[in-house]
Amino acid sequence: MTETNQEHRASVAIIGLGLIGGSLGLVLREAGYHVSGFARNPAVRSRALALGAVDLAITDLRDIVDAEIIVLAVPVLATPVVIQDLIPHLAPGAIVTDVASTKRQILLWAKNLLPGSVQFVGGHPMAGKEQAGIEHADIQLFRGRTWCIVAPDKTHPSAVATITQLAIATGALPFTIDALSHDAVVAATSHLPFLAATALADATFTRSDWASLQPLASSGLRDTTRLASGDALMHRDICASNHVPIVKQIDQFLERLGELRTLIHEQNDEQLLAYFERIKTHRDLFLAYLDARAAIT
Amino acid sequence: MTETNQEHRASVAIIGLGLIGGSLGLVLREAGYHVSGFARNPAVRSRALALGAVDLAITDLRDIVDAEIIVLAVPVLATPVVIQDLIPHLAPGAIVTDVASTKRQILLWAKNLLPGSVQFVGGHPMAGKEQAGIEHADIQLFRGRTWCIVAPDKTHPSAVATITQLAIATGALPFTIDALSHDAVVAATSHLPFLAATALADATFTRSDWASLQPLASSGLRDTTRLASGDALMHRDICASNHVPIVKQIDQFLERLGELRTLIHEQNDEQLLAYFERIKTHRDLFLAYLDARAAIT
Repeated sequence: MTETNQEHRASVAIIGLGLIGGSLGLVLREAGYHVSGFARNPAVRSRALALGAVDLAITDLRDIVDAEIIVLAVPVLATPVVIQDLIPHLAPGAIVTDVASTKRQILLWAKNLLPGSVQFVGGHPMAGKEQAGIEHADIQLFRGRTWCIVAPDKTHPSAVATITQLAIATGALPFTIDALSHDAVVAATSHLPFLAATALADATFTRSDWASLQPLASSGLRDTTRLASGDALMHRDICASNHVPIVKQIDQFLERLGELRTLIHEQNDEQLLAYFERIKTHRDLFLAYLDARAAIT
Repeated sequence: MTETNQEHRASVAIIGLGLIGGSLGLVLREAGYHVSGFARNPAVRSRALALGAVDLAITDLRDIVDAEIIVLAVPVLATPVVIQDLIPHLAPGAIVTDVASTKRQILLWAKNLLPGSVQFVGGHPMAGKEQAGIEHADIQLFRGRTWCIVAPDKTHPSAVATITQLAIATGALPFTIDALSHDAVVAATSHLPFLAATALADATFTRSDWASLQPLASSGLRDTTRLASGDALMHRDICASNHVPIVKQIDQFLERLGELRTLIHEQNDEQLLAYFERIKTHRDLFLAYLDARAAIT
């Protein structure tokens, strides 16, 4: 802990300096936090220092002992291993949080592995890019985005307040939700769009005649498949830790697309027009919501 | 026909002044064509004149008699009616073209309805926006985009050359293809992405609890559903005039997504990672192609 004038400068250790960890370091330092960052790769540590994403690049987990807040910014499936590595070095009263895309499994690991002297608050900033890695870190990444706060029942309210404050410091809008609801909703709003984009990319870009057909690709195809360029490991981990809600969402989507296929196959032109008009109205309302939210942040 | 100095100024009549017709008028006038435009709605005609999308707004199809090129810029299913309305006013040697998203059905109507004294060349500029209507007309709409040229066998090569020249004048890249291949390819590159976006929009935005869940929507969901805000009538007409290739593409997509569902359901983490990595590589190659093309246009 360090003091600057009268003000206390909260100390954060970020474990993992990829796109999210790096962006978080940049914005938290600007917000006045003292940020130390851990990464195994020396090139990543140098980059983090050069970009100003950390005050201190640490190579030994013993150095997190002074941090009040520890942020796990690693792939979902790496989380239990990282928690076990951290345990010997967590000071009593330390608050551990994470930024993973799924929450049920993370909260389970936190409950089973972390000592009772440590507070855990799950987090999920709804922000990202297709490009992974600290070289794409962006101080604006979280601005105006929703940051889900998913706290276990036994977590102390002051720990929840500390992590909510951290989310606000990044420019994000905190959103309190329980783990099961979170995972069900993001299966629909985030994981299904990635899977649909990937299946669509598969159905077009892997065609044997694709090289000669590319001139006929539209900007619509580019945008609709954008998510398929996302980080493969991150999405594999998401599927592994949220498979039940995801399969349920895929099934609902397959059902809708199957109904649409029937309307087209049967040349039911009237119902098809009514359907496209109805969905367009819903989509335009969603855009209006996004515009309204952008205007206030 | 009008003469400017020694140069002959080709005369084009655009039937329908929506997004495509209006944008085409803007760019062809700048390229030196004399452009007259037909629209039934007086407000659209005034707007076209005010925007500079036409030299002349016509209300009587008799006024197209002087045009060397007639561009049909109407919804697919309106095409046969418009052709029949035009027939009495087409001068011998006139070249008729269109800008519709499907080509087999259009070429069939042209063959069955147009007199032998008129040349027909099918066209399809691969450009658009979700926003329909002349108020969104954009002189840059066709720049760097592929413009499919689909000529019936009996069409005179000089007519094909005239329409190819017109496409080039808009900044587009002409691409010669036959009608069946065209319709099969755009079913994959354009129609399927719209339908996937629409089914995805249906699976999320029509949920009864959506209003409370919207804060968890990501920019990925926004982009992946963008096409669902497209013009409903245009897409209904596309489905009606291209249903066989579209159903085939939906089936291929359903098969890919079904395989993906199985990998997730069976928690086959290793294959899932390999699959995501493989599709990401294909998608990144497609992006590299788009970048290369953007660099040369």
